[in-house]
This record gives sequence, structure tokens and C-alpha cells, in this order.
Amino acid sequence: MNYFSSDFKLGILGGGQLGKMLLFDTRKFDIQTYVLDPSDEAPSKIACNKFCQGDLMDFETVYNFGKQVDVLTFEIELVNLEALEKLENEGVKIYPSPKTLRGIQNKGIQKDFYIKNNIPTAPFERFENLESLKAKIQDLKLPFVWKCTEFGYDGNGVKVIRQASDLDNLPNVECIAETMVPFKNELAIIVCRNPSGEIKTYPVVEMEFHPEANQVEYVICPARIDEKVAQKARAIALNVSEKFNHVGLLAVEMFQTQDDEILVNEVAPRPHNSGHYSIEASYTSQFENHLRAILDLPLGNTDSKVAGVMVNLVGAEGFSGDVVYQNIETILGWNGVTPHIYGKKQTRPFRKMGHVTIVNGDMNEARRIAEDVKNTIKVISI
Amino acid sequence: MNYFSSDFKLGILGGGQLGKMLLFDTRKFDIQTYVLDPSDEAPSKIACNKFCQGDLMDFETVYNFGKQVDVLTFEIELVNLEALEKLENEGVKIYPSPKTLRGIQNKGIQKDFYIKNNIPTAPFERFENLESLKAKIQDLKLPFVWKCTEFGYDGNGVKVIRQASDLDNLPNVECIAETMVPFKNELAIIVCRNPSGEIKTYPVVEMEFHPEANQVEYVICPARIDEKVAQKARAIALNVSEKFNHVGLLAVEMFQTQDDEILVNEVAPRPHNSGHYSIEASYTSQFENHLRAILDLPLGNTDSKVAGVMVNLVGAEGFSGDVVYQNIETILGWNGVTPHIYGKKQTRPFRKMGHVTIVNGDMNEARRIAEDVKNTIKVISI
Repeated sequence: MNYFSSDFKLGILGGGQLGKMLLFDTRKFDIQTYVLDPSDEAPSKIACNKFCQGDLMDFETVYNFGKQVDVLTFEIELVNLEALEKLENEGVKIYPSPKTLRGIQNKGIQKDFYIKNNIPTAPFERFENLESLKAKIQDLKLPFVWKCTEFGYDGNGVKVIRQASDLDNLPNVECIAETMVPFKNELAIIVCRNPSGEIKTYPVVEMEFHPEANQVEYVICPARIDEKVAQKARAIALNVSEKFNHVGLLAVEMFQTQDDEILVNEVAPRPHNSGHYSIEASYTSQFENHLRAILDLPLGNTDSKVAGVMVNLVGAEGFSGDVVYQNIETILGWNGVTPHIYGKKQTRPFRKMGHVTIVNGDMNEARRIAEDVKNTIKVISI
Repeated sequence: MNYFSSDFKLGILGGGQLGKMLLFDTRKFDIQTYVLDPSDEAPSKIACNKFCQGDLMDFETVYNFGKQVDVLTFEIELVNLEALEKLENEGVKIYPSPKTLRGIQNKGIQKDFYIKNNIPTAPFERFENLESLKAKIQDLKLPFVWKCTEFGYDGNGVKVIRQASDLDNLPNVECIAETMVPFKNELAIIVCRNPSGEIKTYPVVEMEFHPEANQVEYVICPARIDEKVAQKARAIALNVSEKFNHVGLLAVEMFQTQDDEILVNEVAPRPHNSGHYSIEASYTSQFENHLRAILDLPLGNTDSKVAGVMVNLVGAEGFSGDVVYQNIETILGWNGVTPHIYGKKQTRPFRKMGHVTIVNGDMNEARRIAEDVKNTIKVISI
């Protein structure tokens, strides 16, 4: 198959920042892309060859979009699965496959999958809805983590339950109650696999949390952990990848417990926030490797050239409206600092508006500059 | 000035591969761009916010385009200067300035500039046209290099004259006759300067020529030369930059003579083929630094993370038509290899269709892989 400057068409479901960053690589290789997104202001709207506005959960919309392309991928899991299955039956190549997505889209099914495949994960119980959970609350050990099984995103759909009344305002949807794991570190590994079976892993990264707010502050590559723990994490991530038999990227998020056990938290079958550092730090970015994988091209080197730290840019509290990146000129003056602005015109509290990568030959220096970046740039409104 | 996700508009004259690569960075920073190019199939046509088709040498076209933007830059020197001068007088910021461009666009004026400013350059004589050169041929020492002063590009407009009859089929245009310099190496340095006067240089790169065909085969960063020679080259490049008082990038091409003297060959006030390696190898690519410079943002680190070698992809002899990149899958399997496909649908002999960057922690290994790349990938037609 000739992909480069040819009639070949890649379809991408979702036109957010992940799609936008994937388009850098489709442009670099001059591969034609069609993008479907509900928003007329989607970050991927320009830089694709054809932009289609439409609902990703609507069967007809996704089906009709998919019929126009040769290979179909997605940058968000919340897409109409039935349409994907029909398209696959009709010969459109879809990576990751609808089957893989079906095992991941619902967190209850995903957790069952880990149990079935002997993949270590935190103990949990599934509930049809909130009412059935409430009915069994006396059997559950507090605190636990409530997670809705579908449509959760970026911290939505997850809540720590310390007392029964914490359940009060939650939606009455399918959910799980998961044992709270006291962990030392939250780690992630991105596994990359093409249809021919070539497989590569990115280094283990560390998600450093703010000590009070329960929010990832820094993604750090490589993780500052013992090599033995890193090896264990890599072996588990490869096992998860093999069991899912996925094509493309699989981001495997894990807990490192106090006893240095590794528990799989969840996976995402696509480019992932924990891999953004790779654009500047790695020989091949996660986006380029996703593209290589789904086109069954050889995978690129996943090693790092330099240490990388990533800081998310989220809308500051108290600001809504036309975005301004306060002090961005200041951080641009620092060594190895690259802001990525996703192109959302409007900020609101905690909205993901961009990220900043800090690379350096010396990890401690990268981490120090990252902290300065975090304390300096602010996403506000005019 | 707020550039990021704002109403600010950057205009780019020319929509070729240099413009296309610049758009990666305008997209990364979410800076709005307008592009003007005569071709409906320009590589920059997508990924800009607005594409205008039109003649870059036409006064009205350039003037009307420029009136729509806040800052104007160009990716090709062959643009209507009078329109730029009028726009500048009317308050549009133009970087590099029309004044800088006027000193560079005509190679005769450029050479006079070096003499006037005591910048070492090969001896030459200016002629109004070919006829006046022919009339003085008996005074010129053979061999010499004939160069037309305007509109030369990529080896067009340059010819080694070994005997009088070599002049026979040349156009009767303004030209120079330049003494042939026996050189050890052809070197280049990209200097970056913003309106506030901050200035940075990229490392000296080496253009390695094919021993028989007089064509650059590899651009190598850093150049494999003595540090003393590198220092001398850097000092001269900085002097050239200062004298031109340019804003943006200035690529300074130089000869290293047999006696390790440095002679300035010519300059280009824009991103340059000799800096393409920087996308993968440098902390900040030449394109990002061009953008930072013309927007008067702090310049990024010009150091390299790793060694880089660049190979141009030009159309193979004997092939014209719809392009195919033969064996591109093979080279994608090698360590640190990134092809850039410019997006021209049609190949023809010697047309610049793309380039491949090879990066590696070890320069010798990068150079070795580059040679394999050069011998493996072939730009042919279907």
C-alpha cells in the first residue's frame, strides 16, 4: 500500500488535541486525513484534508464517515461501536479494532478482563447502577473509589467515597466500587504494536501528583524508580497489550504500591497525555508511532534523546471566556521549554488547554524548570 | 501582543515546503496564518487558516494580501519588494525587512555588500548582462563561476565556465563572474535574531558533496571540522548578521578554503535546507526559532540533543509523474530515521520532493545510516 502523497485516506474519529497532534505526523508524511468531530471549532479542523462535523456517538454519522476512508482510527473512546463493527465487517480497516475497544470502553468489562487474564488490578465490585451500590453499602469497606463505567473522562466519573453520604449527588448509572490502593507512584507505559506483530514500549513514566489536590502535576520520563520496578511494570504492560491483542498505541496506567507491587489501573487504546513528552524527548513521538502502527509500517525507536517533563495547562479557577496564556513569553525564554497550545478559544476552570514540555540532558534540571513553568504560566481569560 | 489563540494574523509569502514546516510551529502555538502562493497544490495549502492563490511577484496581489495581516514574513526571496516597502510604510511589520531583502535578493548587490563591510568573500566582477561579460572574457581567468544575479534557485543560475564556449547558451541577464575557490568544505550557520536584538547561532553544519556530481548529498550537524575553524566561521556569520541587521533567520553559506580561511558564499534570510536537521536534532527547530524571532519572542535553545544528518529526497532521473517513494518502508525500520514528504504530487528529475533526517547519539552511526538511506530510498513515478 502506498500511503505517501497518494489517494490513500486515513479517517480519524475525534478532532481534539490528540487528533491535532497526530495531524503533525500525517502532514509530515503527506498522508491524507478525514476528521469527524461534533465541534465546528475542533483543534483538528485545519491541517486535515477534509473536516466533517457530526456526532461521534451517532450510528449513521460514524458509518457514513467511515465509508469514505481506507483505514479508520480514533482519538477518543466515546464513539459508536456498532457503526465500527459494521464498517469492519464491510472491509474498512479499523485500528484499534472494535473488539479491543469493546473490552476497554466500559470500565466494568475492562476490570473483568484483567481478572480473567490474571492481570493484577485493585479489587472491585460491579454494580448495575448507583441504587444497587447503595443497597450494598454496608458490605463495602470505606473509603473506596466510585467509578462510573462509561463516559467518564479526565477525572469526571471518579470519586473517593469516605462516607455513605458522598454518594448522594452521583448519577444513577452503571458503576464499580474499587478498593483504594495506597500507592507510592502512579506510573504509565505506552505500548505500540502493528498488525504484523512488531511491538515496542516507551519508557516507564511517572505521574507526579500535587500533594493536596488529587491532580497529576508532572509527567516525568523516565520515571525516577528502581530498575526492578520498571522491569516489572514493563512486563505487565506487555502482558496487557498481548491479551488485548491491540493495534496502535495502548497507554497502560498503573499503581506502584507501597510494597512495590504493580496494579493496572486502566488503559487507553490511543495516544495519551502521559506520552506528550515524546514529541520533544523521544526519537519517535507517540503520535508518529501510532500512525506507523495502524498503517503496519515499522515502528520507530521509542528511546529518549533527553529527559522530559510535561506540565498540563488547564484553565485557572475563576476564569471563563477568551483565553490568554499569561507569562507564556517568560517561559519561552527558558531552556528546553516548548508550549503546545491546543487551540481552544475559550477557557474555563480545569479545561485542558495545552501542555508544556521541558527537555534537558539532566533530569533534575528538567524537573526544576518544570516547577518554575508550573508556577509561572497561567491560563486565564481576557 | 497576544499571539496565542488570538485574532493576531501572521502572513507568509510562499507556500512551499519551508512554509509547510513553519506551519507545524504556528499550529503548535495556535497562531493564525494566511498563506499566499501561486499554486493551487502548494504544500502549505492546508494547515494554514486562510490560503490565497496568487502571484508573489505581482504588486497588487502581495499588497492586498499584506493588508490583511499583522506581521508578514516570507519563505522565498522572489517576492515583490515594492509591495513590501509600501506595506511597511503603512505600518505592517515585515520580517525580514524589505531593506534586508533588497541587499540579498540581487547577488551582485549582495557581493558588493560583503566588500563594503569587509566580509571575506570570493573575488568577483559584476556585469550588466552576458554580452558585456563576453566582451571582457579575455580579462577573466578561467575557470570561473558564472552566476545570474536574480531568480537563481537550487543550482539554476550557476555554472562553472571552463572555456569561453561554456557561456553559449546562458541567458543574457545581469550576472557576476566569481573566482573559483578550491575549498575543503562547504559550511553553513543559521543565525537567529529578534527585533529586541537577542541573537543565537545554530552549530556549524557541513555540506558533504558527492565527489563527482556537484550536488550536496548530506548536511551534517555538527560539522566534522576543527573547533578553531568553527569559531572563525561563527564569528564571520555573526558579523554578516550584524551588518545586515536582519530579523528572523539568516542562513550563511561559507567555503572553508584549503588554508582554512572562511569565505562567505551567500545568505538566505529564512529557514534553510541546511537547517532541516534541527526539527529532530535541536532543542528548538529553525522553524520555531524563525517564528519566535519575527514575533519578538525569546529565542529557543539552538543546541543539539543528538547528532543529525539530513539527506535530500530529489526526483530520480528518468521519472516524471505521480510520485512513489520506493523503499520508504525499509528506511522507516532503521534507527532514528524520519522522512519528511513535502506533498508534491508530481515528481520530475531533481525536483526537491522531501528530505530524510537521521539522528543518533553517535555521529558516525548517523552518517552510516544516512548513506544507507541515500542508497535505498528512491523518488520515482508510478
